Amino acid sequence: MSFPAKVRIREVAPRDGFQSIEHCLPTPTKLKIIETIAKSGIRDIEVTSFVSPKAVPQLSDGAELVGMVPRQGLVLSALVANVVGAKNALTAGVDELVVVISATEEHNRANLRRSIGESVSGLDEIFSVAREKGVRVNGAIAVSFGCPYQGEVSETEVFRLAEAYASRGATRVIMADTTGMAIPPQVAEMVLRFQTAFPDVELGLHLHNNRGTAMTNLYVGLLSGVCTFDTALGGIGGCPYVPRAAGNLATEDVVYMLEQLGVETGIDLMTTIRAARVLEKILGYQLPGQVMKSGPRDPKSAAALIGSGPCSR
Amino acid sequence: MSFPAKVRIREVAPRDGFQSIEHCLPTPTKLKIIETIAKSGIRDIEVTSFVSPKAVPQLSDGAELVGMVPRQGLVLSALVANVVGAKNALTAGVDELVVVISATEEHNRANLRRSIGESVSGLDEIFSVAREKGVRVNGAIAVSFGCPYQGEVSETEVFRLAEAYASRGATRVIMADTTGMAIPPQVAEMVLRFQTAFPDVELGLHLHNNRGTAMTNLYVGLLSGVCTFDTALGGIGGCPYVPRAAGNLATEDVVYMLEQLGVETGIDLMTTIRAARVLEKILGYQLPGQVMKSGPRDPKSAAALIGSGPCSR
Repeated sequence: MSFPAKVRIREVAPRDGFQSIEHCLPTPTKLKIIETIAKSGIRDIEVTSFVSPKAVPQLSDGAELVGMVPRQGLVLSALVANVVGAKNALTAGVDELVVVISATEEHNRANLRRSIGESVSGLDEIFSVAREKGVRVNGAIAVSFGCPYQGEVSETEVFRLAEAYASRGATRVIMADTTGMAIPPQVAEMVLRFQTAFPDVELGLHLHNNRGTAMTNLYVGLLSGVCTFDTALGGIGGCPYVPRAAGNLATEDVVYMLEQLGVETGIDLMTTIRAARVLEKILGYQLPGQVMKSGPRDPKSAAALIGSGPCSR
Repeated sequence: MSFPAKVRIREVAPRDGFQSIEHCLPTPTKLKIIETIAKSGIRDIEVTSFVSPKAVPQLSDGAELVGMVPRQGLVLSALVANVVGAKNALTAGVDELVVVISATEEHNRANLRRSIGESVSGLDEIFSVAREKGVRVNGAIAVSFGCPYQGEVSETEVFRLAEAYASRGATRVIMADTTGMAIPPQVAEMVLRFQTAFPDVELGLHLHNNRGTAMTNLYVGLLSGVCTFDTALGGIGGCPYVPRAAGNLATEDVVYMLEQLGVETGIDLMTTIRAARVLEKILGYQLPGQVMKSGPRDPKSAAALIGSGPCSR
């Protein structure tokens, strides 16, 4: 088994997590969480989205927030779905855009209120305005591994979107398992196919844990050579319609796993665990992350964190 | 990637799960849960333990419970730690014993109040009384992959115990990751070493999810040829000292994963999910299982179960 020596973690809690929280977190609270996250050594943070404030009121403070986050080497990205959002994000001063289009018509319409064709035809302008500002563009493909409306997703559609992004000069393509439907052999196959089709384009995986398979999918992606993963502190994220479903892979669980596998992330595990615990306290309910509850593998560190004796059974 | 065609799931919720619940479930409630589990087509159930009722009062009704469970093809096993427990289990009429010894002195003392040597010296009599009754014996090795007291565990110790079980005619050896410390390469290595040392002995894996790695460990075990896994409905289990820690791998999550991988279990997924939901209702708090919250992959089945529209984000 061989793994990449180094992996990039993109922290998406401020975007994918905060948008799934029923109430709007105050901007200073978001800032505090982002600053806590940044202390761990993480570099890439998807900090907000620039979409309809009516559709996602939780992130309507995006411009203000981007202005408040101290940079200190951070790469701040924001999710956008059209050129209006892209322009707003660029005006706010983000370092990267994440454009999203779904691999199924039904999901794209539900999520973005337009057809895939309409989304794709907006790409030229988005890439153009980003290029003018020297800002990189990530191309995200929602429901790449399964669609909650249609079920199976056509690989052809996924790769048509990958091509649309790659041909316009996307920095990376992110395949998103939006509702946790990916299974390991599918991940391995899609990654291989991507690497063959786009040997020079970085591939990222954005994995949700709705069905308990996300870490295994990450592991398989890692074995296949994927070096960029989206994760969210505490495992927040998920869906307002499936209120108890797990969200993204928890950043601290992924950092733990990668550390155990000898893969470098540049992120400090204990600081990340502490940040997840701060987040849990702020949100006021139990988060799905695991390492934040049991502590790391080393008994002394675990005891220091958990503050109780080990379990004997 | 190649997987075994068929896998045995040992349902351990009634033993490993119920012992971790603070209050004692009434025997009829346990019976109801076991009967609900049995409807899924599962065959092997670890139904209770015969240990000190002072140490584990939650399972002090073991004999009564074993007498009440309708057999109908079920294989009922019970955990024991010494010959007194073994005799009680045999008198109660179990089909299999699961003897447990830890791979570290400190854990064995904390869990069983005796040294590993004392535990091993009791094995002959346990195997002998079981053989008289024609009852099979499983040999479980606690903390096989890491110890919450000592940290790293000597592989030599693990394999010394495996040898102690195998040489006495154990039906299978179960390596237990008691507090979720196993990591995938370690699982692959231990499995390979076991298969080389004991080519004729069945190996089972008992995996906890304290650090989010259990499903990946199962996946790696599966790829290495392991055909027996312990799981617990809803993912119950865990540790009274780490109250929020996840427990065992959730049976329904594993059945889902195996079904997606084309591995036969003989277990019906929807029935298992419904059983997990019954269990959650009875216990009155949220269980860590994932598929029970999001439903299976097929949108129609998921909607029928969740009773709401799919999530678009």
